[in-house]
Amino acid sequence: MPTEPASGHDLRHHGDAEVRDGGGTLVDLAVNVRADTPPAWLRDRMAASLAGLAAYPDGRAARAAVAARHGLPVERVLLTAGAAEAFVLLARALKVSRPVVVHPQFTEPEAALRDAGHTVDRVLLRESDGFRLDPAAVPEEADLVVVGNPTNPTSVLHPAETLTRLSRHGRTLVVDEAFMDAVPGEREALAGRTDVPGLVVLRSLTKTWGLAGLRIGYVLAAPETVARLERAQPLWPVSTPALAAAEACVSPAALAEAEEAARGIAADRAYLTAGLRDFASHGLRVTGPAEAPFVLVRVPAAADVRERLRALGYATRRGDTFPGLDEEWLRLAVRDRETTEGFLRALGRALGA
Amino acid sequence: MPTEPASGHDLRHHGDAEVRDGGGTLVDLAVNVRADTPPAWLRDRMAASLAGLAAYPDGRAARAAVAARHGLPVERVLLTAGAAEAFVLLARALKVSRPVVVHPQFTEPEAALRDAGHTVDRVLLRESDGFRLDPAAVPEEADLVVVGNPTNPTSVLHPAETLTRLSRHGRTLVVDEAFMDAVPGEREALAGRTDVPGLVVLRSLTKTWGLAGLRIGYVLAAPETVARLERAQPLWPVSTPALAAAEACVSPAALAEAEEAARGIAADRAYLTAGLRDFASHGLRVTGPAEAPFVLVRVPAAADVRERLRALGYATRRGDTFPGLDEEWLRLAVRDRETTEGFLRALGRALGA
Repeated sequence: MPTEPASGHDLRHHGDAEVRDGGGTLVDLAVNVRADTPPAWLRDRMAASLAGLAAYPDGRAARAAVAARHGLPVERVLLTAGAAEAFVLLARALKVSRPVVVHPQFTEPEAALRDAGHTVDRVLLRESDGFRLDPAAVPEEADLVVVGNPTNPTSVLHPAETLTRLSRHGRTLVVDEAFMDAVPGEREALAGRTDVPGLVVLRSLTKTWGLAGLRIGYVLAAPETVARLERAQPLWPVSTPALAAAEACVSPAALAEAEEAARGIAADRAYLTAGLRDFASHGLRVTGPAEAPFVLVRVPAAADVRERLRALGYATRRGDTFPGLDEEWLRLAVRDRETTEGFLRALGRALGA
Repeated sequence: MPTEPASGHDLRHHGDAEVRDGGGTLVDLAVNVRADTPPAWLRDRMAASLAGLAAYPDGRAARAAVAARHGLPVERVLLTAGAAEAFVLLARALKVSRPVVVHPQFTEPEAALRDAGHTVDRVLLRESDGFRLDPAAVPEEADLVVVGNPTNPTSVLHPAETLTRLSRHGRTLVVDEAFMDAVPGEREALAGRTDVPGLVVLRSLTKTWGLAGLRIGYVLAAPETVARLERAQPLWPVSTPALAAAEACVSPAALAEAEEAARGIAADRAYLTAGLRDFASHGLRVTGPAEAPFVLVRVPAAADVRERLRALGYATRRGDTFPGLDEEWLRLAVRDRETTEGFLRALGRALGA
């Protein structure tokens, strides 16, 4: 992957590199994918699809299933090879002259916009504001605004009402809801809304279902936007196993399982954040309230702490590649209680506690 | 061989639509994918990869395997989500002002170039020349030339020496070798050559291995071209099962199996073309020598013949969506002897023989 941001942040650094370069021996708190996934029933569905690989992918059933899950017509749904493809399509297929990205957030949208030749303006949210968004901070002239909800890496969940206030005639409002299905009840979701002009919602099946390796996600938008993005896609953009997974993951049973997982994550996160607060005397602060399956922490000499944690067998995600953050930040994936306990013990040692 | 501006043909029509709309009951001679694929050993390799889907794809091993298979450094290899993605990358990431596509051929390269805003000139090969290419027919000013070898749908295999004569300083020469592994000995292949300036070779694993549903292919080119295309790719462009398949399909055992399959296809094709020649008295002509796993035939009232064949249970590929062909042409996939026998009987009835 290319790494040449004008700004100095490595926008193409992602958590997988932190785990990968550990030789596979590290406990992974760097990658935001739910552990022990995909579940066996989902693996079976994908394995069954392999027998039909000689045929070109036919996305119609999966598209209809996703549309039905959100109560939308199929014309408002575009299946993509992961959210990453959606960012490239948005950057290349839409007529945009003044794109603005709200940071800190997932860096691929800005990287894709820049690679497409755009000059990208940033709205930097501040720790002192709890990384919350004031819609007035977004320039009126912005004709494309990208914001994550809940936001990676801050774990902040913006109110839906705050986001809809960003909608304008002539503006595309991209809300990346890649982690929304990890929020119980999908509180503050905009997916399925058709009353917000210019709204484009991105969804991922990667995180909750452990399908990072499969490349599957989708876009919900007005039919004319979907049509424009679709024209910029390669032929047969989504593989047959990915289509099988998409169809399976929007079934009522899967949605119930995701909701249960979301509640479990909330409990595990509460356990993690309570443990982290025990290190307040070492200068460690937890960004809150955290609403995503990861938490953002500020800790003095975070780079050293991260290295010590690696030596103790734990991979965490550096924060300094996110615009708006610096070397003092780390992102931690929410794991089960036992993993978290082990991590907290290691963190205590890393902090000299 | 006149050059002409783009017009009129449905470049987005492909054989899969002809089979799909038959309700799954038609014998498929429309889609150029080897029957009874993927083989069980390959399905097993892909199924095994599903357990690791929670991790983001790591393409390094597959890229190294593909590079080794062609005796190239990894910097000359780019894995793509099928050849279709490669066409989009070439159209969008390279600086091109005068692209030329040699027709009749697979229509996606031109469609991708047009979607990227280019004006595309065509070199039309003629039946009277056996659809053979005279390099002098390609305009000197062309800075991107796309040609298929062997060519879909004509089944013509151009001599490597003819193609290398198209190489120029300042020109990108794209040779689509998607079907080359179905040619015994890969005669006339340019894959692996590093002495041809501007050469870009595209390869597919779809046809021989029955992986149309998986989206996997690769580009072989100069390191700077690979780097430029890679920058235009989405993050994690190729899925984990597709990477597993790519690695498996370039193993020595797989290459030996492909070579055996290529020889079988040659025998099956000889059987098909001999049978087709029996209908010469009905005005049916076979384009030859055919070197790909399909043959192109000219037959009066081909559209009616195709409809009659559908009624008899056989899907064939219409030829009139290929620039340079018209309603008199059909493309037929090479199948096993038994399937071909049944098809020839049906063809006899369709022709009123």
